[in-house]
Amino acid sequence: MLDFARRRVSVRDFLSNPIDLRDVLYAIDVARNAPSGANRQPWRFVIVVDGDLKVKIRMYCEEVERGFHSRAPEWMKKWFREKGITWRKEFLTQAPVLIMVFGKIGEPYWVQSVWLAIGYMLLALEEKGLASLTYTPSKVEWANELLGVPKEYALQAIIPVGKAKETPKAKERLRLEDTVYCNRWGQNYAACLDQSASRCCAGSR
Amino acid sequence: MLDFARRRVSVRDFLSNPIDLRDVLYAIDVARNAPSGANRQPWRFVIVVDGDLKVKIRMYCEEVERGFHSRAPEWMKKWFREKGITWRKEFLTQAPVLIMVFGKIGEPYWVQSVWLAIGYMLLALEEKGLASLTYTPSKVEWANELLGVPKEYALQAIIPVGKAKETPKAKERLRLEDTVYCNRWGQNYAACLDQSASRCCAGSR
Repeated sequence: MLDFARRRVSVRDFLSNPIDLRDVLYAIDVARNAPSGANRQPWRFVIVVDGDLKVKIRMYCEEVERGFHSRAPEWMKKWFREKGITWRKEFLTQAPVLIMVFGKIGEPYWVQSVWLAIGYMLLALEEKGLASLTYTPSKVEWANELLGVPKEYALQAIIPVGKAKETPKAKERLRLEDTVYCNRWGQNYAACLDQSASRCCAGSR
Repeated sequence: MLDFARRRVSVRDFLSNPIDLRDVLYAIDVARNAPSGANRQPWRFVIVVDGDLKVKIRMYCEEVERGFHSRAPEWMKKWFREKGITWRKEFLTQAPVLIMVFGKIGEPYWVQSVWLAIGYMLLALEEKGLASLTYTPSKVEWANELLGVPKEYALQAIIPVGKAKETPKAKERLRLEDTVYCNRWGQNYAACLDQSASRCCAGSR
């Protein structure tokens, strides 16, 4: 799992080459096996392969992003510049497949459950050698009308899927010791490994 | 991935046998390689192995759950009864390890990012043969004081980890055709497979 997790990077430039839809279905099958609040499975997936529909989706997204990018805080604008991210969302028409992920509003922990399932999905896509991005437009209501989605469901993410145009750079991560602690915030995780070892040996004597 | 996803079930009865903490660190290492909004990595993990601390955590959780269970909607009470879930949270002291997952409030898509990472974590725990549960107490502020966590972070989940006391039953899922559609809500996903096949053949002529 660690290999897939490390290798998987967010891709924004896709080849338009078609991909095997069975791989996409596989990833969705993995996702729907995720746990959810009270097992309500609040996720629904609309696979978009139709070219005209992708053009419309891109149009809606770019319209809302133009506003969002002008209002973004300064640190985020800086990050956008560094990453070359603009309000343009070419990937929405470039990628051969878009997975539109909807969540059922009001189910227990529905947002959490849907995103946990998206985690499952991303690893499964990586396993199949498919590049992906998790993208959430800053407004989402348009998607219900465009795709005929009942109003109890809200678009949570658009996952473009395809082959990456370039091999993306390795990603940056905080150090493990700055994200994991033992028993108390700030305490090095190694302390837990020591406790675990002593328990382990006491128990196995 | 599908095997892990299918096999992984939520476990509420753990053996108290110690587990190898390196497997837990492995799963956290997988989780922190998940993508996050603007790569802010808003997750932090506190591994709890201390017995007294687990008793306190259980005490806080049971206190808040007692109220929650009496207020829960009728369908949820029914589901709780069917699953044998009460306000008692034995697993918090039974399981050898608790992973306390915190999210940094206000980072872009912080809740979504943290739960996506939890998805990564659950699959990695399953890979290591470890049972887990995602449990979120209905109030969480107590955790900051108990574990010395800065107030910018909020507890998102407690993941008890260990070996399952019994082999849990297979889980129930909606049918694939009731969760995945092609291009439009309600349209069978098979339509996308057909389109994909025709494109594929046109392109390879």
